[in-house]
Amino acid sequence: MSGALNHQVRLAARPVGLPKRSDWQFTETPVPEPRDGEVLAKVLYLSLDPAMRGWMNEGKSYIPPVAIDAVMRAGAAGRVVASKNSGFKEGDEVAGNFGVQQYAISDGKGVRKVDTKFAPLERYLGALGMPGMTAYFGLLDIGKPKPGETVVVSGAAGAVGAVVGQIAKIKGCRVVGIAGGADKCAYIKELGFDATIDYKAEDVKVGLKNHCPDGIHVYFDNVGGDILDAALARLAMRARIVICGAISQYNNTTPVKGPSNYLSLLVNRASMTGMVVFDWADRYGEAAKEMAGWIAAGKLHAKEDVVQGSIDSFPDVLLKLFKGENFGKLVLVP
Amino acid sequence: MSGALNHQVRLAARPVGLPKRSDWQFTETPVPEPRDGEVLAKVLYLSLDPAMRGWMNEGKSYIPPVAIDAVMRAGAAGRVVASKNSGFKEGDEVAGNFGVQQYAISDGKGVRKVDTKFAPLERYLGALGMPGMTAYFGLLDIGKPKPGETVVVSGAAGAVGAVVGQIAKIKGCRVVGIAGGADKCAYIKELGFDATIDYKAEDVKVGLKNHCPDGIHVYFDNVGGDILDAALARLAMRARIVICGAISQYNNTTPVKGPSNYLSLLVNRASMTGMVVFDWADRYGEAAKEMAGWIAAGKLHAKEDVVQGSIDSFPDVLLKLFKGENFGKLVLVP
Repeated sequence: MSGALNHQVRLAARPVGLPKRSDWQFTETPVPEPRDGEVLAKVLYLSLDPAMRGWMNEGKSYIPPVAIDAVMRAGAAGRVVASKNSGFKEGDEVAGNFGVQQYAISDGKGVRKVDTKFAPLERYLGALGMPGMTAYFGLLDIGKPKPGETVVVSGAAGAVGAVVGQIAKIKGCRVVGIAGGADKCAYIKELGFDATIDYKAEDVKVGLKNHCPDGIHVYFDNVGGDILDAALARLAMRARIVICGAISQYNNTTPVKGPSNYLSLLVNRASMTGMVVFDWADRYGEAAKEMAGWIAAGKLHAKEDVVQGSIDSFPDVLLKLFKGENFGKLVLVP
Repeated sequence: MSGALNHQVRLAARPVGLPKRSDWQFTETPVPEPRDGEVLAKVLYLSLDPAMRGWMNEGKSYIPPVAIDAVMRAGAAGRVVASKNSGFKEGDEVAGNFGVQQYAISDGKGVRKVDTKFAPLERYLGALGMPGMTAYFGLLDIGKPKPGETVVVSGAAGAVGAVVGQIAKIKGCRVVGIAGGADKCAYIKELGFDATIDYKAEDVKVGLKNHCPDGIHVYFDNVGGDILDAALARLAMRARIVICGAISQYNNTTPVKGPSNYLSLLVNRASMTGMVVFDWADRYGEAAKEMAGWIAAGKLHAKEDVVQGSIDSFPDVLLKLFKGENFGKLVLVP
């Protein structure tokens, strides 16, 4: 790799509201050589996730903020191009926390080899990656859906939401998806969702009333804001709300909109529980195995929104998430 | 009782904001005679509870609203003055859902005999009544405090809060109480709370930071609003929030203030769960027995704020709750 350059995107400033181009800096450094124990991977697919917006903020959260001037944190999938780590050899296809750059050095921790004969490489960033794990453990361990119950998921055409809905169907639930636009709603219908609500065209409260005559037993929330409030207003007794994210609030320049209808938790003896997928790291293998079985059986489908572009296009592509423009798991081929 | 009159307070209109005198009507009807299976009780102590405000509103809740023109729903304690129910005899001291009136007819369902040799009659509306049961099951079954954990309770000098804090101490927790005013704070200190925050004189956020260096493991919320937000901002990992009430919001004429900091649930993998004490009705006996033991052992103390007044003073006395003027369980001797 001698002489080759590694293009990187670094955090230049903590954004206020939507990240601007000036919040980033673009660097080129020589592609490093792996030292003993290290592996060098070429990034082929970069994962773009709503959570990235939170990582850019100062302050205590479930993970330290990305430091100013550091390469932006990102999951990615790629190929080993050089290895001095006995766990990996040149040509291995891998996924890991490689950052927004073309090449990444790693000591191998958190890097896993993946099987592209079974599924395309980019899927290991979506249904077979963190979003899939998030859906699996959030729905099953926190939401605890029972057959016949009604499960509602927001961001239903997204990387997490689409998997949540399909797992809920596999578990015998009635599933209602909330998504933005007719195309996304048509897509989740194809995936087997029982009903859809297009929040851009319909009143979500009315939609939930129509499609959840017995109330919502499990609400898996990716968006927060008014949609969370609408779901709260429609809870069944002893409902479980999984707080996975709140994409509608991440770029606020005013305080987060708290859920006005939270006292519905009291009326309905319901719970609202936050989750971070990392807590299930020791069970990823178990989930991946079961999900692979569902994929092989044709019960679980996945879609990636693959954007071709240089690594420098990362800041613009990221904004698609916050504008609801992605359709399936958003990945960048740098 | 022939010829005697039963003074009653009925709901005349659904209040907007704080209940006004015109939201009530005052009636006198002949004291009824019990029919077969019925018991007639004279009300000696009337229970005034924050939840009453919710019962006055139209709309679906955990209990049907009080109908317009109906006698206002209220717990009360009193004495049987006539009985055609084999379970009760004249002179029995009883507690039940007797309503805001001087005499109540009942078929005996939900009426329990109480022992005034063990505790004064009014205590069966407080620590040994619904507020005590609420504290017991909300803290132990929902909050699930472990020894050494930090428990924070708002409305800490109130009928529920004071019991929550004392049970938490019995269970080996560090307990921080939030109350309004130096007198209330001094009182809960006497009860054994480790620290107090006077929300009228102090910044609650700063107080929680000072008194909860390891974060809050269990937050028992009676008040909602800004105090709930301050507690959310200080959660420990895997914290449990018990939503028991939201007295700061009950008389709002604007929408309820939702908790802006609810995403702290995600960051801290925490949960927020609503409760209604009625769900534990089949276990009240068990709780009452354990609480009586604690009282006998001097580990659990209770205080009632006993107001002498005619039944017609109910509307004014009720407002003490919403102004934070009561000190301990508020009861009216009609």
